[in-house]
Amino acid sequence: MINRQLLNPESIVVIGGSNNMHKPGGAIVRNIMQGGYTGTLRIVNPKEDEVQGIKVFHSINEIPPTELAILVIPSKLCPDAVEQLVKEKETKAFIIISAGFGEETVEGAVMEEKILSLCKEHDAALIGPNCIGLLTSRHHSVFTKPIPNLNPQGVDFISGSGATAVFILESAVIKGLQFNSVWSVGNGKQIGIEDVLQYMDENFNPDTDSNVKLLYIENISNPDKLLFHASSLIRKGCRIAAIKAGSSESGSRAASSHTGAIASSDSAVEALFRKAGIVRCFSREELTTVGCIFTLPRLKGRNFAIVTHAGGPGVMLTDALSKGGLNVPKIEGEKADELKEKLFQGASVANPIDILATGTPEQLGIAIDYCEHEFKDIDAIMVIFGTPGLVKLYEAYDVLHKKIQESGKPIFPILPCLHTAGPEVAEFLSKGHVNFSDEVTLATALAQIMKTPEPASPEIELFGVDVPKIRKIIGNIKESGYVSPDVVRELFQSAGIPMVPEFVSNDKEGCLSFAAATGFPVVAKVVGPIHKSDVGGVVLNIRSKEHLEMEFDRLMGIPGATSVMIQKMIKGRELFIGAKYEPKFGHVVLCGMGGIFVEVLKDVSSGLAPLSYSEAFSMIHSLRGYKIIKGTRGQKGINEQKYAEIIVRLSTLLRFATEIKELDINPLLADENTITAVDARIRIDI
Amino acid sequence: MINRQLLNPESIVVIGGSNNMHKPGGAIVRNIMQGGYTGTLRIVNPKEDEVQGIKVFHSINEIPPTELAILVIPSKLCPDAVEQLVKEKETKAFIIISAGFGEETVEGAVMEEKILSLCKEHDAALIGPNCIGLLTSRHHSVFTKPIPNLNPQGVDFISGSGATAVFILESAVIKGLQFNSVWSVGNGKQIGIEDVLQYMDENFNPDTDSNVKLLYIENISNPDKLLFHASSLIRKGCRIAAIKAGSSESGSRAASSHTGAIASSDSAVEALFRKAGIVRCFSREELTTVGCIFTLPRLKGRNFAIVTHAGGPGVMLTDALSKGGLNVPKIEGEKADELKEKLFQGASVANPIDILATGTPEQLGIAIDYCEHEFKDIDAIMVIFGTPGLVKLYEAYDVLHKKIQESGKPIFPILPCLHTAGPEVAEFLSKGHVNFSDEVTLATALAQIMKTPEPASPEIELFGVDVPKIRKIIGNIKESGYVSPDVVRELFQSAGIPMVPEFVSNDKEGCLSFAAATGFPVVAKVVGPIHKSDVGGVVLNIRSKEHLEMEFDRLMGIPGATSVMIQKMIKGRELFIGAKYEPKFGHVVLCGMGGIFVEVLKDVSSGLAPLSYSEAFSMIHSLRGYKIIKGTRGQKGINEQKYAEIIVRLSTLLRFATEIKELDINPLLADENTITAVDARIRIDI
Repeated sequence: MINRQLLNPESIVVIGGSNNMHKPGGAIVRNIMQGGYTGTLRIVNPKEDEVQGIKVFHSINEIPPTELAILVIPSKLCPDAVEQLVKEKETKAFIIISAGFGEETVEGAVMEEKILSLCKEHDAALIGPNCIGLLTSRHHSVFTKPIPNLNPQGVDFISGSGATAVFILESAVIKGLQFNSVWSVGNGKQIGIEDVLQYMDENFNPDTDSNVKLLYIENISNPDKLLFHASSLIRKGCRIAAIKAGSSESGSRAASSHTGAIASSDSAVEALFRKAGIVRCFSREELTTVGCIFTLPRLKGRNFAIVTHAGGPGVMLTDALSKGGLNVPKIEGEKADELKEKLFQGASVANPIDILATGTPEQLGIAIDYCEHEFKDIDAIMVIFGTPGLVKLYEAYDVLHKKIQESGKPIFPILPCLHTAGPEVAEFLSKGHVNFSDEVTLATALAQIMKTPEPASPEIELFGVDVPKIRKIIGNIKESGYVSPDVVRELFQSAGIPMVPEFVSNDKEGCLSFAAATGFPVVAKVVGPIHKSDVGGVVLNIRSKEHLEMEFDRLMGIPGATSVMIQKMIKGRELFIGAKYEPKFGHVVLCGMGGIFVEVLKDVSSGLAPLSYSEAFSMIHSLRGYKIIKGTRGQKGINEQKYAEIIVRLSTLLRFATEIKELDINPLLADENTITAVDARIRIDI
Repeated sequence: MINRQLLNPESIVVIGGSNNMHKPGGAIVRNIMQGGYTGTLRIVNPKEDEVQGIKVFHSINEIPPTELAILVIPSKLCPDAVEQLVKEKETKAFIIISAGFGEETVEGAVMEEKILSLCKEHDAALIGPNCIGLLTSRHHSVFTKPIPNLNPQGVDFISGSGATAVFILESAVIKGLQFNSVWSVGNGKQIGIEDVLQYMDENFNPDTDSNVKLLYIENISNPDKLLFHASSLIRKGCRIAAIKAGSSESGSRAASSHTGAIASSDSAVEALFRKAGIVRCFSREELTTVGCIFTLPRLKGRNFAIVTHAGGPGVMLTDALSKGGLNVPKIEGEKADELKEKLFQGASVANPIDILATGTPEQLGIAIDYCEHEFKDIDAIMVIFGTPGLVKLYEAYDVLHKKIQESGKPIFPILPCLHTAGPEVAEFLSKGHVNFSDEVTLATALAQIMKTPEPASPEIELFGVDVPKIRKIIGNIKESGYVSPDVVRELFQSAGIPMVPEFVSNDKEGCLSFAAATGFPVVAKVVGPIHKSDVGGVVLNIRSKEHLEMEFDRLMGIPGATSVMIQKMIKGRELFIGAKYEPKFGHVVLCGMGGIFVEVLKDVSSGLAPLSYSEAFSMIHSLRGYKIIKGTRGQKGINEQKYAEIIVRLSTLLRFATEIKELDINPLLADENTITAVDARIRIDI
């Protein structure tokens, strides 16, 4: 529970504040003072009389009531301190910097629990323990450096790791990225990343609040909450990017050892981020680059003009944008010729616009103006401007500064000379700009943003899915494991998922009459063994009664066989839909083409149930082999609408049947008209 | 022609040297002087009497003989200056900084030609025109900044663009990368990138020469030369990385506009780099990161230990290494427990080894020692060490410095706090180290290095390829275009590439008897139209004489039909081999699986003819669908050895038949024993 006392305290006490700047207790007092905190700052330290010019209280007993307490004392002293503060000093907010709690020992976990209960009882907010603190324009309650420039329109940054937050800030300040707030949630005992997002969502004021959020996450403890508030914020106009560390198996091991986080399966994370509309990043550089892009006006299209005074970086940028699906359209015509006239001989305007190494600041401005006003199909402008050290760049960067202020189109500054033009770049950043020193890093981050979908609709597509019936079927299942084919069929019928006509029996005559009625050719499959094909349990294209009789006998002789399934033999392209229940996340639904596409090429895309139609289409479209679904030269495509419908219906079924832990429909057979599930397995835990 | 006078001149004259540091003529004199040039430095300037403390000659007439001349005067004055210098002043080397030559105008190209002839006549070396110059420890003959630290064991850097070279140096100096030489070849009129490599190759001394080369290339003017000398240098122990800008279609447009370079097709570049063993980079950041990695001891394996005092970056690094096919193996056992004892409570040694934020320099050293001496399956150590600003890092970085000096395993320093720990990082770099400030950028660059193959053998596999016969067949072809099926068959026979038995005729009876002799079922195809399938010109599985008669008549009725081809009907998995002649590069050979794999999934890999067996295997193995070739559950693979053999034989055929501009074998049909070409097209330009 985030409260006013945490965000905007009238008084702060640092328990353990000191004169030693090499210790957190000294550094945090210095940061609060240098941060211009305007309330009353108190310090408790039994061994000092004065700390950094402030008179010190020797014990908590002595202080007047104080709204926010920051604890930088050994962990074993924290529970008593919290108790005294909430009970005697009306303290309603805590930032516990100290480590040595649940992340280290069982005793630590017990202390942490006690502190949590005390805060709960007294309606107090708790950040930490085991964190670097909280940094806002009101109070700089962190013990670390660097302190980035603060600005209400800067970035809100929430981190699950204090040290990583520091390193991300290092990467950010070099780029000029400014911050509105930095939250290090530490062990997140009361307030985790999801809770900070919830607060920001529920209290969002579009006129005053920052609309950029960056997250560093090691453990998604409440995926639903993250999804709900992240997508809600994005719908309100915010932009969110996040690192979820621990995507590899070895990486997960590292994450577990770090904060006791149990890593979620990566495909669930990927699906969650896509559903929420969160831009996924994989490095500090990428996160801070995306953050810088988010502070610029929003892109309205994919067409970029590149204005450069050096050919090479323009070419590399063009290559990288193209690779990311973005365009550097050719610029030509009357207006282009006009611009060329205003540049030096040898300049090029075809895009990249190369004003040459000798290009002047004035020419830079003119080129930007043409991109802004004259070249109609340009959505954004990238400006590459460095120096070989002959002249200072103040004038050129001043032109760039003015154009960025005036321009309706986003302008991306790429200023590569951090060494030779260090002071000029610094002055440019001091005017509130960001800088992308490497053009390819920028292009890659942009591509990552552009491929992130909008948040999915939170509504569940219910029509045609008979939820009460589904619950009844599930309720009748008495033991865990793979359910029988007739239960699969009933569940699919209740969800409106078409299955091939089939008949399951251990009675040969029954099977023969079903085959006669549905019409040959038919397929016969053994029921019982899980991997039917491996035991020779699937026979296709049975064309006669006699053949079926023979195969029936053979199939019933396979070890584990309980009966035989007869299906109408249909043809079509093989599709696949699968689902897996991830604890806390819910069902991850996978789709793709069957056979080698799933097994060899791993060409599947994932979504988190329940899925909307637009999500299902987005999943289908993101398959590498999508062209085959669409139809290629000489080959008809399949009914995409129906495929999406089955994915949506299945995801709704799953949403109301969380007992289903694994589900495979493999294959579905599809043509341009219909799609039919041919074989399916469902595993249930009850 | 690179000569002693260029590399190690006893005297240098700067024609156009000045006092204005904002002009190249002033800056280059300053750089040469500050660079400690020990020979005689002369300056010619008609308007000055003294420049930067040096007495000035007012014309070239006045100077004594001088070995190296640097020209920073208007382009139109250059030809006469060169003429006078070579004829009267025994000048044997030129660096022409001035622009305004072939890159701008036709008149400029004429002047450039004249200068080239003069240099040729008088055995003089020529760098430029239109360049930033040449930087070595002997003389800093560049007009630009930054000047990186020079070191005989530093990097040799050759750039096709001066401005880009400057920006790459910016990215390099921040990382601490040191240089042995920087070559800006400008228009490369006499000495291009390939020529510098040739010189380095032919004069390579493993004891004294730098073994790292970085290249920035906009135009590969002589692919054979690049291939020959790059792979030769790599075989001698060098390591080479390069950017070839202009890989996208839009990027190529930019490259053309920049230096008049005609972009080579990107797959040819990719194939050339792989053949040579050059690590391909796509950004300045990547190139300089790879350069830094190259200055460390060579990796002997793929197993990394990560020593960190912050969990998050360790996790992100682990994720990125895993993604790149590198390992962060779990560390456990007695020695691991022993190390854990020496760290603070809560530390983890499972790998990443997290010594905690409170970890001391001593503990850092201990952890590195364990990775070096005790953990046997560790090939390299990555150390992440930053600071939240409480303490200075001199001591920790000193430990790191000592361990890097002592260690037999490569140690990668990841020091993220460029802002807060700026001075400490600078001191660390000043000891000759490099720094990777972003761990994921490092991991990505490492993966790029690890996936680059060794240089291919330069020998051509000739056995069984009848070159005289191939030349005779080609010599008999009288017109350009697609050759007839029987010529295709003859060429393939000469190269030992098996084709399905077939018969081509417009005589129905002949076709019928061939079919009877080879045995039904057969395939009938129309000959004449290029896209046979699109016009209904392919009939599979013809099982009887009567059916074949009917189809023969129908096929001959298709517009453009000249005859009918009858083939034995065979079965198998479809493979594809294609080739395209790229001017200057030679034949790019593509291989992959047929059908959707080529057409939809674009799953092809490329090589440059002639190909060795190991190259062919490397091409096959790098296919995404390679598992299918190898065989998957329930499906036998194909004869990989035979597939490689056909690729090698075809590439040898192409090497001796450069008249072939395009070639497709689509499909070849393959099973676990044999591979047979079923359909092939060859286009020839004579």
